[in-house]
Amino acid sequence: MVRLEPGERIDTLTTDGLQIIQAEDQFRYTIDAVLLSWFATVQRGDTILDLGTGTGIIPLLMIQRQPDLSFTALELNEQVAERAQRSIRLNKLQERIEVVNADLRSWKPGRHYNLVVANPPYRPLGQGKLSATKKIGMARHELTCTLEDVIKAAARALGTRGRLAMVYRPERLAELMVLLVQYRFQVKRLWFVHGKESRIATQVLLEAYKDGGPGLKVLPPLFIYDEQGHYTSAMLAIYKDLRSVGLE
Amino acid sequence: MVRLEPGERIDTLTTDGLQIIQAEDQFRYTIDAVLLSWFATVQRGDTILDLGTGTGIIPLLMIQRQPDLSFTALELNEQVAERAQRSIRLNKLQERIEVVNADLRSWKPGRHYNLVVANPPYRPLGQGKLSATKKIGMARHELTCTLEDVIKAAARALGTRGRLAMVYRPERLAELMVLLVQYRFQVKRLWFVHGKESRIATQVLLEAYKDGGPGLKVLPPLFIYDEQGHYTSAMLAIYKDLRSVGLE
Repeated sequence: MVRLEPGERIDTLTTDGLQIIQAEDQFRYTIDAVLLSWFATVQRGDTILDLGTGTGIIPLLMIQRQPDLSFTALELNEQVAERAQRSIRLNKLQERIEVVNADLRSWKPGRHYNLVVANPPYRPLGQGKLSATKKIGMARHELTCTLEDVIKAAARALGTRGRLAMVYRPERLAELMVLLVQYRFQVKRLWFVHGKESRIATQVLLEAYKDGGPGLKVLPPLFIYDEQGHYTSAMLAIYKDLRSVGLE
Repeated sequence: MVRLEPGERIDTLTTDGLQIIQAEDQFRYTIDAVLLSWFATVQRGDTILDLGTGTGIIPLLMIQRQPDLSFTALELNEQVAERAQRSIRLNKLQERIEVVNADLRSWKPGRHYNLVVANPPYRPLGQGKLSATKKIGMARHELTCTLEDVIKAAARALGTRGRLAMVYRPERLAELMVLLVQYRFQVKRLWFVHGKESRIATQVLLEAYKDGGPGLKVLPPLFIYDEQGHYTSAMLAIYKDLRSVGLE
């Protein structure tokens, strides 16, 4: 059994019985994390760095698809890192997922990882409403790190041909591409996600290789809902593949 | 009546009776030109520069949608420029479309345009098979100008808030975005085109503003064919809106 703090609850994450501790008043995981966990290419034995793990959702979901992975899950907020640590113990995955409470701007990896995953804050300071509580704001706004900080940290943690998988907002795609090129990443796959087929894209997922060769592919888009507001068969297939019970 | 050279033919372009002269052994217009003509935002009275007009297809199609436009259609190849000139006379549009036989790398616009349109060669030298004839190669490969030359020429021809509309290949999207930012363009709309819904994108269309504000939108994608290989209703609506009879 694992200790719960006031305001915390245990949610069921997958049909395999994986559970996650989330706090009612803090940032809970979103569809972004689900999509990134599904999208990232993994190979057996991969070592993976999750930059800003939050609840620990991405390592927990990814390990369901491929158990032979090992993660470093970096989180700046001490309380959030500690909660992720308890979720991992709850699922007996502490051999596979190490939580590190550190600032990605100053943390020095002792090794090269095969893959970095990141679901970073996406609003520059001064744009959009700041979230009601600062705690949620930290995950949504660039209060604690900029997009450049994230890409720089990823570049530092990867060797040649190391992979970066990210989810971000299409509004800032130009800035994102410029930074990736600047830090010697070659974008290989872009995947646009639209709430419905008739709407503009709400998310972009990308896979880039450090010092990789050219040849970007824009994948067939994902539509989350059909025009009637039901999950599309493509979205249901993703939940099924992750054995995820879906979002609340 | 208009003179035809050996190997040339007159094709019907629109249901309104617009015609175009094309040469059998040279580059004929493609779906790229059709999509760009439909995608570019135009306002009454706009002055438009077409960088590398080829057959003159883009001005001819755009003027069908909005007759109150005036074009400068730049073309490097003397024979191709002369043929575009004859197509324009054939349709009595010489008051609206001026063909200029010049190299976009050295040509100096005497004014600022409202809009630049470009369907440039998309393969860097040394990549892909060179076309069987050098004439076709000139339009497909960067034999005569690079992507940077095109964007530089567009930047020179536009004032603040001037618009650039382009069609290009997704494979080179990262390079394209970096160059646009470098020449002070802000991408406002990206539109991905897929042969079918289940395939990677084959074209990307973009609209950028010189010195514009942030806020990129990725539009709902276009699928050209359905899974049975017939034009989608979206594609048919584009042909209809352009009053185009479609590709051969």
